[in-house]
Amino acid sequence: MTATEARTVVVVGGVAGGMSAAARLRRLDEHAQIVVFERGPEVSYANCGLPYYVGGVIAERESLLLQTPASLRSRFGLDVRVRHDVVRIDTAQKLVEVEELDSGRRFTQSYDSLILATGARPRRDEPVSDIPVRSLRTVDDADAIDAALVRPGLPVVVVGGGYTGLEAVENLVARGASVTLVQRGSQLLSPLDAEMAAPIAAEVRAHGVDVRLGVEVVRADSGYVTLSDGTSIAAELMIDASGVVPETTLAERAGIRIGETGGIDVDAQCRTSAPDVFAVGDGVEKAELVGGGTALVTMAGLANRHGRMVADLLAGRSETARPALGTGIVRVFGVAAGKTGWSERQLRAAGREFYAVHVHPGSHAGYYPGAETLSMKLLADPRSDAILGVQVVGRDGVDKRIDVIATAMHAGMPAAELAQLELAYAPQFGSAKDAVNILGYVAENTRTGTTPTIQWHELDAAQRAGAALIDVRTPTEFAAGAIPGAVNVPLDELRDRLDELPDGEIVVHCQVGLRGHIATRILRQHGVDARNLDGGYRTWRDAALLRG
Amino acid sequence: MTATEARTVVVVGGVAGGMSAAARLRRLDEHAQIVVFERGPEVSYANCGLPYYVGGVIAERESLLLQTPASLRSRFGLDVRVRHDVVRIDTAQKLVEVEELDSGRRFTQSYDSLILATGARPRRDEPVSDIPVRSLRTVDDADAIDAALVRPGLPVVVVGGGYTGLEAVENLVARGASVTLVQRGSQLLSPLDAEMAAPIAAEVRAHGVDVRLGVEVVRADSGYVTLSDGTSIAAELMIDASGVVPETTLAERAGIRIGETGGIDVDAQCRTSAPDVFAVGDGVEKAELVGGGTALVTMAGLANRHGRMVADLLAGRSETARPALGTGIVRVFGVAAGKTGWSERQLRAAGREFYAVHVHPGSHAGYYPGAETLSMKLLADPRSDAILGVQVVGRDGVDKRIDVIATAMHAGMPAAELAQLELAYAPQFGSAKDAVNILGYVAENTRTGTTPTIQWHELDAAQRAGAALIDVRTPTEFAAGAIPGAVNVPLDELRDRLDELPDGEIVVHCQVGLRGHIATRILRQHGVDARNLDGGYRTWRDAALLRG
Repeated sequence: MTATEARTVVVVGGVAGGMSAAARLRRLDEHAQIVVFERGPEVSYANCGLPYYVGGVIAERESLLLQTPASLRSRFGLDVRVRHDVVRIDTAQKLVEVEELDSGRRFTQSYDSLILATGARPRRDEPVSDIPVRSLRTVDDADAIDAALVRPGLPVVVVGGGYTGLEAVENLVARGASVTLVQRGSQLLSPLDAEMAAPIAAEVRAHGVDVRLGVEVVRADSGYVTLSDGTSIAAELMIDASGVVPETTLAERAGIRIGETGGIDVDAQCRTSAPDVFAVGDGVEKAELVGGGTALVTMAGLANRHGRMVADLLAGRSETARPALGTGIVRVFGVAAGKTGWSERQLRAAGREFYAVHVHPGSHAGYYPGAETLSMKLLADPRSDAILGVQVVGRDGVDKRIDVIATAMHAGMPAAELAQLELAYAPQFGSAKDAVNILGYVAENTRTGTTPTIQWHELDAAQRAGAALIDVRTPTEFAAGAIPGAVNVPLDELRDRLDELPDGEIVVHCQVGLRGHIATRILRQHGVDARNLDGGYRTWRDAALLRG
Repeated sequence: MTATEARTVVVVGGVAGGMSAAARLRRLDEHAQIVVFERGPEVSYANCGLPYYVGGVIAERESLLLQTPASLRSRFGLDVRVRHDVVRIDTAQKLVEVEELDSGRRFTQSYDSLILATGARPRRDEPVSDIPVRSLRTVDDADAIDAALVRPGLPVVVVGGGYTGLEAVENLVARGASVTLVQRGSQLLSPLDAEMAAPIAAEVRAHGVDVRLGVEVVRADSGYVTLSDGTSIAAELMIDASGVVPETTLAERAGIRIGETGGIDVDAQCRTSAPDVFAVGDGVEKAELVGGGTALVTMAGLANRHGRMVADLLAGRSETARPALGTGIVRVFGVAAGKTGWSERQLRAAGREFYAVHVHPGSHAGYYPGAETLSMKLLADPRSDAILGVQVVGRDGVDKRIDVIATAMHAGMPAAELAQLELAYAPQFGSAKDAVNILGYVAENTRTGTTPTIQWHELDAAQRAGAALIDVRTPTEFAAGAIPGAVNVPLDELRDRLDELPDGEIVVHCQVGLRGHIATRILRQHGVDARNLDGGYRTWRDAALLRG
């Protein structure tokens, strides 16, 4: 298991993937020489915590700094050099050329194995400007933003409404900044589908943030940012959260193969095209499960896992990376949104067959206080029933449902099998039929045609084609807000009022889909060509937010 | 899918399994005659909510009553008769004899299919007494307990420290009762192993409850309960939470086969030994996954699922019950405890080979406020690495980890694969290496012998046999409390102090196991016969609570 002669392993990049590789290798090989070069001033810091340090949620700057070169030396015998920039790799000679940034001195370091963990860099497409622009990638970024925020009401423009942008927004608001969120796309949180992400924009707006969708920054100067729609916004600080691109400069210069996605091309054991050169983390393109191809999945968990795997390989163990699911989650103000696998948008773009299911179960038993309504969307293969993706949005219990379904996907479990999972039930935690079970039941009813459904975006066309829309909720619910054109026939009266229904196709709906399912079953058994509006009024209303 | 001629389906028992069967059958078959007989005054009530109604957490009695006979008639066209006791089944004539409890009138009802959902009844082994005894099975129980609690400081003895007993205790305390918890076994929460359950007893005691372990009630009269150790306790109310037994009287009388566990014997489609008679829920013994045999698993989720499955069968669909895991969870005061699969005690009793792993990761990233330390125990097969059981105890995130691992077990995932799960990470929700991933990593290190471990209960014997115990925590941690006989050599000094170590076997330990793992790796690579104390000081200290 341990090497009999000391070899030299050089790691470029000292945060997630690089540090995981170095520490694990030491645990397996007490004798290797392990040198870690990090361009920045810190290693192993909690970059996912940076927004919360800005917001004051994380009070101590020290708690971001998980390790120091000194602690890594004493515990792991690692030779960690911060502010050391690896400027060149000679894959033939097996050495790297390193610049000590503070002195400008250059030197070479030979290696037996090299691990590239160079990460990603901000895409940075803002125009050149006299307004300071910061990302949220380093402790230095966080310090600079923190310093600027001492001025109350500072006007800040956040560019990019993804995971990091949303976390930045929440924390800037917490610090009293006046925040505008500018998003190029027509929705926030593009990993989710539009109707799932719509409540996020509503939540962000409800906290006083000016959300601008479908626009870009075209000019920024003298305290104002001008958007592509011609409007301008006061801004004394811009936060660039528009995304990252793999940092591959070093690898490219060394002739190491780059993949189609722009990340370093590696095999299932994180080997690059150069001998004895491995690469892990955000700089690398990853095999992914749903499409079977490669993708840029920039998640700390994968970086850590692959770093550890490379250490195992170097110690003579055989392990391969599992294809990535792209599991992610973000909380912004009171709402959490998570996803794993592909969105409907991705499936459509790839021409994949799928069926979709929306449900809105409670986060725990309705009779116990504090239950919140979840919005869940499942995408699955209509032939194999393989789960292709899941999105969950809500105020409680989102992470749990994402994790359970990510585990099911990892195991190759079909969607209907989610109904069979035996999950922990006490009324504070779930329901005798947990939200995940309900998703499985509805998936099965949908896929088998037990209850044919129609999607929110298909409703207009169906109505134009003559389908009648029957709202089976109570008159009180109907009066509080209804879909245009709907006629109210409460479920509990439906059997007695069958003769009132018009001929031809009928779409039924309720609040979340359950009563609509029961109504559809009643109608179809009475010979009516009925379909249920998937996700009910609630999904339709969420989607309607897109237009408002 | 629907029957072409109306058949009569009779359901005995109108709570979880029975009602699920009836409602699902109606959704699949609009024309069947469905008759539900329920002995009690209510159907479809939230029995898992009863303790919280007693405690005032659930304020409205109505919220316990999920459905009424009237609502079930209007929505599902069900013929639901409460206070109707089925007293006899004639499986040859295919009819049941029913007593209308209020009038004493008897009548017969024929069936094409019969579904028994008779549930369980309290084991009730308290001595006959003038002190009122109540279970927490029915709304009537809850009403009676609620009424008694109007007297502040009422002395109450709860018999049984399982899920229901603990929930009762919490809610009685919330109502100001003076509570004694009497448990026959030597620990609370017997589905968990002793060292995992020990913190539960500490939590309950910290809330002023008098916990008496290893004793039984032998006499109860005139306001006092006498225990088997001779002590007596004031009691004006006893809560029987000592467990339940399947209610099989009706089935037995009809000659329906009862299994070895005492539950009705059914096949994988819930068919009993009598033709066209099905049985579901707490009255039935269930196939279970880990042992491959049968067991009494009295969980609402399984009852619902199996009821629904029987309806599917009656509607011509083919489905089989998955073997049960026995997933359960309870929260008592601030601590939650969950489990799925078997405990170490069960594995030992069955003579099964296993290895055990204890870890104590954070419920989310340590740098983000509010992270709580989880205690997790995994049991797995040393040959196949199949997960045999998991227990999790802590103040946050317990349910999520149980659910993820229950899903992994359902899928047949090996323990080491838990490390590979791509779970949702943002700092409020988890860690880049989630608690579940860590459990997988430690399982792999343990099973492969990368770091050999010793269990808490093996430590005394190892020390007596001459093993030295090295505590690799900091001097501050060591001073705050150490294991007798331990010598402190902090991890970060270990490489420099190897020559101080005694010859022979060495057991190392830290607080939770991670630094002990690193120390073990260092020592073994330097030729020392070292093992790591699994779960570290924390598991040892939890186990030590058992003696105190």
